[in-house]
Order: sequence, then C-alpha cells, then structure tokens
Amino acid sequence: MKNSSVSSEREIDSGNASQVHHIGNDNSSHGHKVGVPPRKNLVHDFSATFKEVFLHDDPLYEFKDQPKRKKFLLGIQFFFPIVGWAREYNFKKFQGDLIAGLTIASLCIPQDIGYAKLANVPPNYGLYTSFVPPLIYAAMGSSRDIAIGPVAVVSLLLGDSLKNEINPKKHPNEYLRLAFTATFFAGITEAALGLLRLGFIIDYLSHAAVVGFMAGAAITIGLQQLKGLLGVKTFTTKTDIVHVMDSVWSNVHHGWNWETVVIGLVFLAFLLTTKYIASKNKKLFWVAAIAPMISVVVSTLCVYLTRADKKGVNIVRHIDKGINPSSVHKIYWTGTYLAKGARIGIIAGMVGLTEAVAIGRTFATLKDYPIDGNKEMLALGVMNIVGSMTSCIVATGSFSRSAVNYMAGCNTAVSNIVMSMVVLLTVEVITPLFKYTPNAVIAAIIISAVAGLIDVKAAYQIWKVDKLDFLSLLGAFFGVVFKSVEIGLLIAVALSVAKILLQVTRPRIALLGNLSGTTIYRNVEQYPNASKVPGVLILRVDSAIYFSNANYIKERILRWLRDERDLIREKGLPDIEYLIIEMSPVTDIDTTGIHSLEELHKISIKREVQLVIANPGPLVTEKLRAAKFAELIGHEHIFLTVADAVAACAPRPQQDA
Amino acid sequence: MKNSSVSSEREIDSGNASQVHHIGNDNSSHGHKVGVPPRKNLVHDFSATFKEVFLHDDPLYEFKDQPKRKKFLLGIQFFFPIVGWAREYNFKKFQGDLIAGLTIASLCIPQDIGYAKLANVPPNYGLYTSFVPPLIYAAMGSSRDIAIGPVAVVSLLLGDSLKNEINPKKHPNEYLRLAFTATFFAGITEAALGLLRLGFIIDYLSHAAVVGFMAGAAITIGLQQLKGLLGVKTFTTKTDIVHVMDSVWSNVHHGWNWETVVIGLVFLAFLLTTKYIASKNKKLFWVAAIAPMISVVVSTLCVYLTRADKKGVNIVRHIDKGINPSSVHKIYWTGTYLAKGARIGIIAGMVGLTEAVAIGRTFATLKDYPIDGNKEMLALGVMNIVGSMTSCIVATGSFSRSAVNYMAGCNTAVSNIVMSMVVLLTVEVITPLFKYTPNAVIAAIIISAVAGLIDVKAAYQIWKVDKLDFLSLLGAFFGVVFKSVEIGLLIAVALSVAKILLQVTRPRIALLGNLSGTTIYRNVEQYPNASKVPGVLILRVDSAIYFSNANYIKERILRWLRDERDLIREKGLPDIEYLIIEMSPVTDIDTTGIHSLEELHKISIKREVQLVIANPGPLVTEKLRAAKFAELIGHEHIFLTVADAVAACAPRPQQDA
Repeated sequence: MKNSSVSSEREIDSGNASQVHHIGNDNSSHGHKVGVPPRKNLVHDFSATFKEVFLHDDPLYEFKDQPKRKKFLLGIQFFFPIVGWAREYNFKKFQGDLIAGLTIASLCIPQDIGYAKLANVPPNYGLYTSFVPPLIYAAMGSSRDIAIGPVAVVSLLLGDSLKNEINPKKHPNEYLRLAFTATFFAGITEAALGLLRLGFIIDYLSHAAVVGFMAGAAITIGLQQLKGLLGVKTFTTKTDIVHVMDSVWSNVHHGWNWETVVIGLVFLAFLLTTKYIASKNKKLFWVAAIAPMISVVVSTLCVYLTRADKKGVNIVRHIDKGINPSSVHKIYWTGTYLAKGARIGIIAGMVGLTEAVAIGRTFATLKDYPIDGNKEMLALGVMNIVGSMTSCIVATGSFSRSAVNYMAGCNTAVSNIVMSMVVLLTVEVITPLFKYTPNAVIAAIIISAVAGLIDVKAAYQIWKVDKLDFLSLLGAFFGVVFKSVEIGLLIAVALSVAKILLQVTRPRIALLGNLSGTTIYRNVEQYPNASKVPGVLILRVDSAIYFSNANYIKERILRWLRDERDLIREKGLPDIEYLIIEMSPVTDIDTTGIHSLEELHKISIKREVQLVIANPGPLVTEKLRAAKFAELIGHEHIFLTVADAVAACAPRPQQDA
Repeated sequence: MKNSSVSSEREIDSGNASQVHHIGNDNSSHGHKVGVPPRKNLVHDFSATFKEVFLHDDPLYEFKDQPKRKKFLLGIQFFFPIVGWAREYNFKKFQGDLIAGLTIASLCIPQDIGYAKLANVPPNYGLYTSFVPPLIYAAMGSSRDIAIGPVAVVSLLLGDSLKNEINPKKHPNEYLRLAFTATFFAGITEAALGLLRLGFIIDYLSHAAVVGFMAGAAITIGLQQLKGLLGVKTFTTKTDIVHVMDSVWSNVHHGWNWETVVIGLVFLAFLLTTKYIASKNKKLFWVAAIAPMISVVVSTLCVYLTRADKKGVNIVRHIDKGINPSSVHKIYWTGTYLAKGARIGIIAGMVGLTEAVAIGRTFATLKDYPIDGNKEMLALGVMNIVGSMTSCIVATGSFSRSAVNYMAGCNTAVSNIVMSMVVLLTVEVITPLFKYTPNAVIAAIIISAVAGLIDVKAAYQIWKVDKLDFLSLLGAFFGVVFKSVEIGLLIAVALSVAKILLQVTRPRIALLGNLSGTTIYRNVEQYPNASKVPGVLILRVDSAIYFSNANYIKERILRWLRDERDLIREKGLPDIEYLIIEMSPVTDIDTTGIHSLEELHKISIKREVQLVIANPGPLVTEKLRAAKFAELIGHEHIFLTVADAVAACAPRPQQDA
C-alpha cells in the first residue's frame, strides 16, 4: 500500500523548520502522520455497515461465550423474557404488582368503554382489549412499567379511518370485521418491523412532531366528548374543530340535555380536582387513579336511583357479558377490504409503536434496565395479532396508565396480569351493573385522561431550544385539529424528514480564529476574541460532504474567500495565500463531494490561493486516497492539525490579525 | 445573561491545579472559556436561516453600494446577461463562436431528426427545437459553453411517458398537443424552481444515481435504434431490454432488411472510428463532430443514386418545410390532459434541469466564470415556455454538443445563435434534401452520440471510492434498462434520499486516544498507536444529534462503555470513572437530542461514571444552556478541549494505557 499521506513533519523538514515552530511547539505533531486506516475488504465493510444499521444494540451480546444448553435457555428467554424474571419473582414483588394492577384496572375499565366509543365499536370490545393483549405482553415484553390496553389516540385514529370505509351504524358487523382486519395488520406491521430490526423507522418521527400530534389528538378527542358531555343528539361524523364546534352550537337550543350537562360538569370538576391534587403531591397519585372508578359508581347509583335516564340522560345501556369470543373468521382474508384494513392497520400499528416505545424507553431510563426496541415491537406485534383473533382492537402502551402503574409501585409485568384478571372478572360478572352509567361521566373521564397528553411544558421547552422544531410541532398540531388525525400524522412525518434533508443540504461553514497564546482554533462567532491569521483563511466544514450539499459547500467556501478578501482590501492587510479547510467534522465524503473539492482546488489555483486540508478523518482519508485527491493538491498540503497547517503556511510570528 | 459555561480554568483553580497541568501545559486553554455566542433575536435568526437556504449564493452582491442608475442596468443584466457581455463582444470572439456554432449545427441537425423520433413526433419538430430555445437561452443564460436543443434522454422520457397516455400513431394531433402541454409545464417547473430559488432540489439526485441513470438511458436509446438499424418492421412499444430483444430476435428471419443492416453498420463503424480518433487526439475533435453530417450526405446520395428505398431501406421521406408555426392554441389549457401533461412536464423539466445545470457547472469550473444555478433555471424555464408555444419539445443542454462547442473554441452564447441560424436555413431551404436519408444512418448517429453517456470510468471511480454510491448507480441503471425511464428515475431519487437518511440515522461514534507526547486526541482506528487514558473513556460523536439518531447515539455510547469495561476487567486495569464526549463535530442538537443526553447523564450516574462534555459548538452551547443541561451535569464538567477535560479528570501522569 502506498503511503499517500504525508505528515507535517516532512513539511517541516523540507522547509524553514526553525521558523515554523513559532507557537505551541509542544503541541506540534511530534512526527505523527495523518493516519491512513488499513484497507478493509469489501465483505467486512458491508457487514460492518449492516451491523451498525440493523444490529447496533448487539442483541446477541449475552449469548457470547456461553455453553450450548445455556444458549438454548437464553434463546427462549430472548423471546419470552418472563422465563428470565419469573425465577427471581417473590412475594414482595407481587405485593407491589398487585396494588399497581388493581389501580390500573380501576382506571382502565371506564377508559376502555370510552375508547371503544372513539373507535365506534360496542363497549365490550374495549374491555376485551384489556384482557388478552396484556397477558401476551406480560410473557413477551421487556418493559416492567408499561400498562397495555386500548389507548385514546390509536382508537380515535382507528375510528376515524374505518368510518371512512364503512358506516358503523348501518353496517356494524362489517365495520367490526374491518376493525379486526386493521388490528391484525397493525400486529403484522409491528412484528415485522421488530423481526426485520427496522425499529429505527419510528425514530423519524421527531419528538416535537409527536408532542404536537399528541396535543392535537387530545383536543380532537376532547371535542368528540362534547357529544356525551352535553347530550347532543345529532353530532357531526367529522373530527375537525370547525365541524365539531358547528355541531355543538347549532344544537345549543334544542339539542343539549341540561341534566346531562350538570352530571358531566360536576364529575369533570371532581376528576380535574383530583388530578390537580395528585400533581401537587406525588404521594396522592392514587386519589386521581381511583377517582374515575368512584365517579362511575356514584353516577351510576345516582342515575339508577333517580331514573334520570327517563329524562333524557344517555346511559351506557347494554354491555354483552362474557369472555372474548373468537374473531378469526371475521378478519377479511380476501377482497377489497383486505387492502383497506391493511392500510389502516399499518398506520395504526406505527402510531401504537411510537407511543409504546416512547413509554418503554422513558421508564427503562428511570429505573435503568435494558430495553430492546426491536424485541418490544415483536411483543407488541404478536399481542395485536392474537388480539385481532380474539375480538380486540389495536392495543398499545398507555401514557397515563403506565405512569400510574409506575407510581403505584409495580415491579414487573405481573401488574398487567392482575389488571387482566380484574377485567376478566368484570366482563364475566360485573358488566350488567354498568347499564345505568351515564355517558356524560365516561366523557368526563376521557377528557380528564387526554388532558395529560397536552404537554405545554414540553412545547415551551421546544420553543425555547429550537424554533424549527417548534414549527413542526405546530404543523402536526394544526393538521390534527383542523383536518384529521391522518393528515396531522402525515404533516408530522413530512416536516420531520424535511428538517433532516434541509440540515443535510445547508451545513454550517465556520470561520476559525486562533485563541491567543494557544494552538487552539475556534469558531470566531462563538469566540469573538479568537484572532484571524494574516494571509490564511481557515474554514471548518461542519458536516459530511455529500451530493446534497457538496455544491453548496464549494460555493459557500468561495463566498467566504471573496468576502474576506473584500475586507482585507479595505483594511490594506496582506492578501490571503492559503485556504485551510479543517476537516475534523467531515465524517464522510462521497464521489460528488470529492468532485467538489477538486473543483475548489482548480478555482483556488485560478484565484492564487493554495488549498490546504487539516485533519481528515479515516473514511475521508481513505476516499481521498482512492480518488487520488492527495496527489492532486500535493501530499505536503495535508496536515494533522490546523496548528501544523498554520505553522507551515504562515511562518511569520503572529502579532495581530 | 447568565454565564452558564465555566472554563477549565475555574476547574483548575478549585482543584489540585499543580497536578492537573501534567501534559501540554502550553496547550491548556490559558483562561479561555467555552464561548457562549450572543443571543440572537428570533427575526434575525430566521432571516439568517432563510438566507442560507435560499440566497446562499448572495445573488445581490453586485448591487451592493451602487448608484441607482447602475442598479437598474445591473437589474436588466441580472435577467439578460447578454446585455453585460454584448458590450465587450468583438470580432475575435465572434470568430471562435462562428466556427463552434457551425460545428454544433452540423452535429445537431441529424441528431434532432433522431431525437424527434424518440419523442414520437415528426422530424421537423426536432429541428424547430434547435431554433427558438437557443435564441432565448443566448439572451438569458449565463453559461458560455452549453449547447441548447433537444437531447436524447429527455426526448426518450417524453416519448415514453406521452405514449402511455395517447397513441402517437392513431392520434398524432392529440399526441402533439399533449407534447406541447408537457413542454409548457416543463418550462413552468424550471422557471418556478429558479424564481423561488429552490434550485437545490436537483442536488438531491446524487452524482452516482445520475451516472447510472444516464448509462441506463443510453442503453435503452441504443436498443430503440435497433429498429432503424436493422430495418425491423414490427417493433415493441415498450422500452425495457426484455421486450426489445424479444422484438429483435423474433423478427430475425423475415423482419430484418439486409440492405438496411449493411448501411447502418458501415456508417456506425465510420462514426465510432472517428469518435475513437477524436478521443485519442483531442485536436481532431472536429473529425468526430462533422462525421454525422458527412454520413448523412454520403448515405443520402447513395440511396438517391441506387434507389435503395425501393428495396426496403427505410428513408426519412418527408420533412415539412418552413419556420416554427405557433402552437399556443394547441396546448391543453383545460381537461384531463392538462393534469397529465403537467405531470409529465414536471418530470421532464427536472431531468432537463439536472443535465443542463451539470453541464453549466462543469464548464464554468473549467473556465472559472461565475454561474448562478437559479438564474440558469429561470433561463431554461422561459426558453421552454416560449418553445412550447412555437412547436418545440423540451430543450435543454446537450452533453455531447456542449463538449464539442467547448472544444471548437466557443467564447459566448453567440455560438448558439449561429447554430440557430443554420437550423433556420435548414428548415427554410434544405429539408427536402433529407428525403432520401436512410433511417439506419440516423439510428447509427444516435447510437454513436449516446454511447458517450455511458461513463464507465466514472462508474469505476465510484465503485472504488464508495460502495453505497455504486449501489445507487446500479439501482438507477437497472431500473431504466429493465423497467422504464420513469421507474429508473424514481429508484435513483429514492436511493439518493434513503442514503442521506441512513447516514443521518447511523452516525459514527469514534473512540479517541492520545498521540504520545502531544495534547492531540484522535480516532484510535485511524491512529492505532494513539493510547487510551486510564480511567477515562473518550468518545467523539461525528454528527449533529437529532431525533433520528439521538437514541442510537445514546445506546452506542453505552455499548462502548460496556465493551470497554469488559476489556478493562479482563486486563485488570483501573475502572472507567469519566466519560468524555468530544462534541466538536456536533454542529447542532434538537430537543430529542438534549433529552437523550439527559438520559445518558442519568444512566451514567447509575453506572458510576461522570459525563463530561468537551468543546460544544455555538449552537449546541446555546441550546444546552436554554435546556439547562449545563446546570444538570454541572458547569465544571464542560471543557474547551479534550486535553483540558483529560487533565482535570485523570490527574495522574499517563505512562501506558
């Protein structure tokens, strides 16, 4: 292999060495050369890239150097983490899980009824979804704090999309079949992303976009609840704020039911008060946690005793008793609804994933236990596939219930099993008692639940830190509120990707100056007292150089050169003879990028400036060598550090720039 | 404003200062602090971003500090560069332009006839396109070397897409109308991109993808010429290689015309020989440049004298005489064909732009004159809009003819005007003489012209430099050859964008070591003799930290920590106490990124490691401060350089790691 990079040492040897060492003598490269990494073979190169992309979390780390038998056990544990932690499970842990499980059960039952309504399915399907999926997750999932079941945003998305295909009132059976089909494909999507280790796809939805999307969805869900809360009879089927408010106001004189409004507002006030108390004193979280169940019991009793339902107060009426029936035969395996269900399911599955993975990561960080995003996706996927065959709609991790689960002291996924058992008891025994529960209370419970999805603090933080991020937050928010959940989601993804592309297309080029008395060169914008070196223009390219920005970088550098020369001419300073490009942040370069550097070199010569490269990284060094760029500009113009390059280019002692 | 960043100086003051200065004393920050850039106001911030994105080339630079009258003149010159250079035009320049113009005219006339065939329009429309658009470009364009007219790839794309909508044989008039509609929208697209300064959009097509796409298009065009070259009667309307070869072979016994094959192959051999001679001796470029015209004249004479057309040799037959007729009334201004024409035109316009801008940049670099991409687009757009109203199909810069123009010594766009005049003479006077020109010769001319689009050298270079780039080259190539031009283009764009996203999602994290005897820290992979510092893990994040990679970066850092600890435990070295993150290449961070750093900090504490930050850039410093991250990890853990951080963290003198 030819040594195509030459250190500053040779430069110093062949020049006026004594003058070169004018500053930071101790910091010169001491004979170190710009390193050329050993040439890797192609297969190794590809497999390394593949590993970083798909297996960066090193999922087989635990299998390393283990005997066969142990590997087999670890294999089972890999897919069923329950096998691992069940052996160390004890009564003390169970105590925590029992309390947490009972708490989230009391919270989930009224929510399930409400979320089933959002999805336009009968209430018992909401309860079914809190029975089977949590059991599957408990066996396969690795988060210890997540609470599984139907959630507000996914149910709304599902109801909103499904209703565009089939009218749930006219064709309730076909609607349900399409819902199960969508749930099946949501599961397939999640499992496939997990198995193919494509989990990183959900990372393309930025935090800001998610905050905006969630807040928008919360507002939309809250608006939907006005129907139940105000007892409006003829309500729009659209979800956007304009149509909903129009429905509400046009019904104000004859459509509102005043008894319903009173019940709804009283309990909403009660629920929000308990939430406020819980937020002020974290120890009283259980007050907010059991408040919904108390509301249900008290309001049901009231209605039963006063027979308010005869005065126009809407009640839940009938909930089918019994455990989840099979729904395998209901899924559309053929026909046009197959494709429609698949499309809706893929979107619902991705949104569900985003929520569950965010929850999983948050609590895993809080308690510092490892969580494997791809394994999580597989667990969520299997759970929804099984769910779709047992009359469940799409389930995922719920923000609010997971937080309660954590605060109530859960230790393992057993709290999900406890919750599941309580739900089983409910569907088998208690459901008839819900007959007199007023819809207004369910609406109040949902409003108070989704209020937590509006994260004003996070939005403010985003505004403070990054204005562009805030713009994508607003885009997603208004998309959901004024158009629909799907449009909002689309805007969120589009803005997120556009932001990446924009930032790759317009990287920063910084002008560097010397910090007096050191060999450190820094951005003059950040360090205003860093001084420019006379006769030398030092620029740092703050990005990999790719086809999407190569031309911009070339033009921007030439513009710096022009502007600096204008400045110099005004001040009568010595002209620029060297253009040093600090390449430390340039992690990679492609053929277009090298082509741009070659063009820059050609133009520099015409403008009587010598191009000099400082500290190219391993990939860049390798590619510049392969493209023979080092030969083009001369090995003696590639240096290990900016300081070395300056020492060689401007051998006069610097006093003032 | 609170000074939220504290330099190592304070750290040194408050600690065991004498021990800290164990290495690179001369290099310590000498009281320099991590700079906090002045807070900018929101409007200024947005306008700066806007300027970098849309006006990075500072188009109004020349207008600065000029009197009003001068500004007005410059304004006219801005849109019509001809006003600028016409004043300095002289006879010497004209000599070069005249010769170049005559040369490209002799080249373009037979090509125009062939390219019109590719677009499925009568030959005279090809000639029309070499008359009007070059005149407009000469007034508005800023490239001095580009040769304007119909080009192979765009004509193929146009013919291929238009024929899917209207059958050109059954409805020739409607087909022509749709072609003009598409040309109109191609012009609108180009002009709009230029006016809105969105020219950077075409940068998203990577060099590699363009090389692959062009080569694929050349093969496809070559295959299409087999019809003319072999005199096949029933030819497929598809463009993919499978259908075309099937057509060719199934016609071998009764469909080929042997006289045609002989004429075709003889002239193809002649043309390729002249090309070979020109490539070997650059001074003989004119041999290749006039060979097509010679072929046309000789073959036409032969056919006329032998009356070979009666033996089944296909000839051009009839070309309408006269100048471009108006086609304003032919453009579809309403109806379904409006949308279809618009779709095809947008794609054709973008492809045309890519080719023209690439040519413009190449020659501008060779001669070092400024070229404004956005202004070029406006010129190309106006030229196609006017073209669409004067019976032209989409015109752009031709690779082969521009190269000949350059080599023939053109000085300004006057060579385009000369060419245009020769074409005018041709359509007014000479066209009837083309009657006996055999189609086989036109096919041979096109094959020899597009052969230059297959850039094997560039492909090999890409293979050597970047394997991922080569993959996108192959994708575009096979997409065009085996499917269609549009699919190939789609694959090219998709692979280009996917490459950006992938590289943003999986940035490199490098492990740094100390170069002995210096305070320089470098990637140990590139500098294998760089030594690790005991008790300290130094990592450099080689990318901005965004939502798309924040989680990966966090997990990858934790994996480094785990792996290094495994290694240390094996060797019995002191455990890692400090995790230094070198942030120099981190040009930006968003809220998700800060969130990830916070999580990293929390987990580090649990794993008994102190997180330390070195050299955060201006944007990062500002955002970390806004997010109060500096308070979280402690100001004393943020340093100006890695050397300072190491000095503070590992105060023992290093001997060996």
